[in-house]
Amino acid sequence: MEHKEVSKSVLKRLPGYLAYLKSIPDDGPAYISATALANALGMGDVQVRKDLAMVSDGGRPKIGYLREGLIEDISQFLGYDNTTDAILVGAGKLGQALLGYSGFDAYGLNILAGFDAQPPISKTEDGKKIYPMEQLESFCRSNKVLMAIITVPAQFAQQVCDRLVKCGIKAIWNFAPTHLDVPEHILVQNENMATSLAVLSMHLQAQMKEKK
Amino acid sequence: MEHKEVSKSVLKRLPGYLAYLKSIPDDGPAYISATALANALGMGDVQVRKDLAMVSDGGRPKIGYLREGLIEDISQFLGYDNTTDAILVGAGKLGQALLGYSGFDAYGLNILAGFDAQPPISKTEDGKKIYPMEQLESFCRSNKVLMAIITVPAQFAQQVCDRLVKCGIKAIWNFAPTHLDVPEHILVQNENMATSLAVLSMHLQAQMKEKK
Repeated sequence: MEHKEVSKSVLKRLPGYLAYLKSIPDDGPAYISATALANALGMGDVQVRKDLAMVSDGGRPKIGYLREGLIEDISQFLGYDNTTDAILVGAGKLGQALLGYSGFDAYGLNILAGFDAQPPISKTEDGKKIYPMEQLESFCRSNKVLMAIITVPAQFAQQVCDRLVKCGIKAIWNFAPTHLDVPEHILVQNENMATSLAVLSMHLQAQMKEKK
Repeated sequence: MEHKEVSKSVLKRLPGYLAYLKSIPDDGPAYISATALANALGMGDVQVRKDLAMVSDGGRPKIGYLREGLIEDISQFLGYDNTTDAILVGAGKLGQALLGYSGFDAYGLNILAGFDAQPPISKTEDGKKIYPMEQLESFCRSNKVLMAIITVPAQFAQQVCDRLVKCGIKAIWNFAPTHLDVPEHILVQNENMATSLAVLSMHLQAQMKEKK
C-alpha cells in the first residue's frame, strides 16, 4: 500500500493498536473489525476506522481485518519491520539503562554500541560495548549508522550533536534536557524526561497549596 | 521568592541551566552572569536573563548570580528539592529499566516500588520490590503516594489509570503508547517512546526514498 502522509496524532495512536493486536492470543479470532478494536481500547469507532484505512487496505466490510495482516501493515507503516541501527552517546546512568533495555527490538531499533568521553565500563551486562568518543567517526562510517541517541549532560549535547551530523547521522533521539540546533534535513525528537518530571512535580506542588 | 506562572518553554530550558551550573567544578568561580550562562549554552542573552529572573531574585548588576544560590533557586522552582514518592505499574522490560535507574534522584523522584499483575521477579537487582496488583490500593494509601508511572501495555493503561485515580494519585507519568482519560484535577504527562521511534524511523525512510 502506498504511504500517505499521516498526522502526528494518527502516528501516536498506531503503536497502541499494534500493542493491542499483538496481545491477542494466537488461537484468538483471525479477523478483527475496527469497531471491535475501538471497543477494546475505549476509543471512537469512526476514528479507529479512519486510522486503519490510512495504513492498511486489507479491511473487508462486515468481516474486518485479518489480524496478522493488520499487524504487518501497521508495523511496516511505522518502520518497525525495518531494523534501524543506532548508536548511543553518553553512557551515564540513563545511557546504560537504555543500552540495556531490550524492549526496543519490538520497535525495530537496534542499538549497536555506546560512546562516552570516559567510558565508565567497557561493556554492559548484556554485552553492548561502550567505546571512547575518539572512535565515534570511524564506527559510524564503517557501520553506516543513521540514527543516534543522545544521553549526555545538557551542556555537552550541542557539540555531540554537531559531531554526529558530521558523521552522517540523519535522525537524533535527544534525551538531554536542552534544545539542539541542526541542519534542515536532520530530525531531532526530544524525549525530555527532566521536563516531564518538573511538569508533574509542579502540578503536585500546586495541588498541595490548594489544599492548604 | 514567590512562584510566578511560567510557560512550558521556560520550564523546558530550566533543567538545562541547572545541569550546566551543577557541572561547574566546586572550585570554579562563585558567581555567574546570565551572559556567561548564555554563552556557555549557545543561547540568547536576553532569553537567559529573563528566564533566570523568573526563578531567582539573587541576580546583582555586573556581578551576576551566586552559583550555589541559583542552583538552589532553580532546583526549588522545579520541585527537585522536594522528594516526590512514586510507584510504578507494569514491571516489564521498560518498567524494570526505570525501577533500576538511579538518575531520577537528582530530579527529586523516588520510586518506592513496582506493581505488576504477575510480577516477573519479586525484587530488582537494586532491591526495589515488585508487588502483585492486589496490593496497589493498600500500598498507595498507607504511603500517601501522589505520583504514579505507568509502563503497562497500551491496552491495559486506561484500567490501571482509573484504579490509580481511585487510589488518590494526582500526577501520572504515562509511558504506555496510548491516550489516557482522567478527571480534571489529575495531570498526565505522556512519554511516548514508541511514537518517538516511529517518527524517527519514518523520517529515515523518507530520507532513503529521496536518495533513490
